[in-house]
Order: sequence, then structure tokens, then C-alpha cells
Amino acid sequence: MAEDTITAAVLVIGDEILSGRTKDKNIGYIAEYLTGLGIDLREVRVVPDVEEEIVGAVNALRARYTYLFTTGGIGPTHDDITADCVAKAFGVSIDVDPRAVEMLLQRMKREDLNEARLRMARIPDGAELVENPISRAPGFKLGNVIVMAGVPAIMQAMLDNVAPGLAKSEPVISETLDAAGLPEGLYAAPLAEIAKRYPGLSIGSYPSYSPAGFTNQIVARGRDRSALDQAAADIRAMVDRLRLGES
Amino acid sequence: MAEDTITAAVLVIGDEILSGRTKDKNIGYIAEYLTGLGIDLREVRVVPDVEEEIVGAVNALRARYTYLFTTGGIGPTHDDITADCVAKAFGVSIDVDPRAVEMLLQRMKREDLNEARLRMARIPDGAELVENPISRAPGFKLGNVIVMAGVPAIMQAMLDNVAPGLAKSEPVISETLDAAGLPEGLYAAPLAEIAKRYPGLSIGSYPSYSPAGFTNQIVARGRDRSALDQAAADIRAMVDRLRLGES
Repeated sequence: MAEDTITAAVLVIGDEILSGRTKDKNIGYIAEYLTGLGIDLREVRVVPDVEEEIVGAVNALRARYTYLFTTGGIGPTHDDITADCVAKAFGVSIDVDPRAVEMLLQRMKREDLNEARLRMARIPDGAELVENPISRAPGFKLGNVIVMAGVPAIMQAMLDNVAPGLAKSEPVISETLDAAGLPEGLYAAPLAEIAKRYPGLSIGSYPSYSPAGFTNQIVARGRDRSALDQAAADIRAMVDRLRLGES
Repeated sequence: MAEDTITAAVLVIGDEILSGRTKDKNIGYIAEYLTGLGIDLREVRVVPDVEEEIVGAVNALRARYTYLFTTGGIGPTHDDITADCVAKAFGVSIDVDPRAVEMLLQRMKREDLNEARLRMARIPDGAELVENPISRAPGFKLGNVIVMAGVPAIMQAMLDNVAPGLAKSEPVISETLDAAGLPEGLYAAPLAEIAKRYPGLSIGSYPSYSPAGFTNQIVARGRDRSALDQAAADIRAMVDRLRLGES
């Protein structure tokens, strides 16, 4: 992996994910989105709405990866503590930001802007705002940490807004080879040999199961088109050979 | 929270989740399952198929929670390194386990048990096996770490097999109150007051969005039935009052 690869982590914040009440839809979406951009997602964590857990995870992850994306906890209710936790993690102050208030006023009247709603305009000192075209309450980017909503439609719009300004590597490309009908145990040894010949690629085997039985796919991933093409040809030849029972 | 609450973390192992190729279905399932059992899921991490990442996460999480459940990386291919990483994390040896070989032989002939397939019988020293009724290759439990397959149907069967032997707390119970039609910003302040009156409960507000607009639910969770009933009544009264515009 190149030294200059752009990396990321995702931090999902919310009791409702850990209780199983809400099934997360953001991890898979962000993973696929960052891969498409050329940013390598390296780690995901889910933590509860507890200050020390959020602060600890923000500091661990922002130190380790180029970017940290958080989802959840930026609404108006008492359990929305993400912005305050991020300010604490960075050791900066946080207050109602007039730019964020202007954004809220695009959707509501000034007399409806009560104290709870003003919580959504609390932004850590030094952060850039990330626009929210749906409900207006913004996300923000502080240093390498991008703070987004938990509601998937809003999170997705925020990601679109922040993406153009991010550093990117060359996107990872991949080839998927169907190995349906071949058990993993039959091709594991020759596949390991192929993987050894292409140390710059990541080669994996992914079974899926239905009551009708298993089916497998082999995926090769990397940034070197020609190595990828060669590896894919090697894997295809191996699969064909095993299918013919010639191995 | 009681001192003797039984807690857990989940560690999802696999490049394919971080690339977005595979959308995880295990986190939400395990979260709901553990909640039903009376085990509090406190943290989730997703890491790639990289030894030092897996070993580091296993040691961080097993030290912190009553149980650690891992998913993924126990198949026969070269990228399946979970069992070896767990052995390394515990500092114990790992070898082909005759009990696991017997399980594999329930599904395949001895002459088909090649070196790759025998990888699935590599079990760290001292582990109990967790049966896999679908494809037979077992998971295992070493200390407080439960190692399961990544394929959802197999993971679910393993969870069923391991559940009876786990320590449990009294299950968390919850009440969900529909706040459709009321914006969060309108009830945030009175809800925070209610939350303050019930420090033993966790009370959250969860918006969801469709093109038709937002709808919200308020959820109270805890182990004290009478506190929960009172809090639910308070929340219902607040919602009714706000709906009548009497606030």
C-alpha cells in the first residue's frame, strides 16, 4: 500500500444502533462511496451516546487516519451530544454559530428558533459548515473530522457536499470472478498461490449461502490495472481448470 | 447501570465490509439478539483482514466487556486468519483439532479433507467448539471471546448454539412512543426534563425521513418496569399536550 494512500474511519454514534432498534444503513453506503472516491476505509466503530466513549473514539481515530467521518447525534434533543464531544476531543470551545443560525432560518421562523433548536447551531470553534439541503441543520468539518447526521438521506447529502474538498488517492479497482459451483476448499490452495504472486493486490473469497446451497465469488482489488488484469486471468484459468476437474 | 450488567462488543472482520462490496447484516442482528437475551452491546468495530488490526482489536475489546463476539474470517482461504489471530491475542498455540475434524467429516469424505479445508479445523488451545449445523466448520469460544462465521445464516445458528451458556442480565425493556407530526425541536426541552427525572432510563428521540417529511419516535429503555411505565406516561402526556398546541 502506498505511503500516500488517503485513509478514513467511520464512527457511528447512537444507542439505537447498539440496542438493535435501528439497523445502520450508513456504514455500507459510506464504505462504497469512499471506495469510489479513492479513499480507503480502514476501520469502523459504533459507540453509545456517552461523552467519554465518543471523545475517546474521536481522538483514537482522527489520529490514525486521514479522515474521520461521524454519523448521528447532531439533532436538537438531549441525547444529541456529538458536536460538544468533538469540541471536547479537540479542546476547542463551542457556541451557537451565526452561520448555522442563518441556515436554520431558511427552514423555520425566527420566533420558532427555541433553545433546543439552537443546539443544532452549536458548532465547535474553527469548523467549516457542511450544508444540509433537507432539514438545513448543518454538519461540520473540524480538522480532519467530518460530522454528519444519522438520518441516511441527510448523511448522503452531506457526504456529497463535503466530497469535492477531500484529498483522494487513485481509486481502488476490482475484478469479481464467479466461482459458483466450486467449493472454497477446492480452490483455496491455488488461490493462495495466486495471492502470493500479487502482493500489491488484495484477493479474497466470499461465500454466500441460501437454502439452495453455497455460492462463491473471488474478488481481486488494487490500484495497478495491469497486475489486476493478470491476476483476474490467473484466477479465471484456475476456476476453469477446476470446473473441468483437471486440477 | 448496575455494576453486574453483562456487556458485549462485536468485532466484524473483513476487507469486504470496509470496501462496501458486502453490506454487513450481522451487526443489527446480533444487537437485537443480545438485547433480547439481557446482554448490553456497548461497542462495535469493523477491521480489515490484517493480523495486527485483528489482534489489537480482540485484546482491546475482550479486556473491556464481558463478551466479545467476532464474525468473519474462519473459512478455508488464505484471507481467513481470524482463528490464528485470536490464538495470538491470547498467547496460546493453535493446531488442527480432532473434534473439529470430526465435525468436518460429517459433511465431506476424508479424502476430500485437503490442507485448506483442515484450516477450518485449526482451533486455539483451550477453546470450546461452537457447532455449525449448516456447513459443519465450527466456531469456537476461547475465554470470553466467541468466534463465529461471517455468513449470516451460519452466524445466526452459532449464536443460537452459544447463547444458552452465556451469563445474562435482566433484559432491557423499552417503550416506543410515536411522535409523528411533532418536530423534535418542539419537544426537545420538555423531553430533556423528563429524561432528567429518570436517570436510570435511557431516553432517545429518533427521527426518520422520507420524501413526505420527517416522523419521530421517542424511545425509553431500562430495566425498571415501574420507572419505564411512569416515564412512558409522562412522555405520552407531553406529546398529547403539544399536539393540542397547549404547551
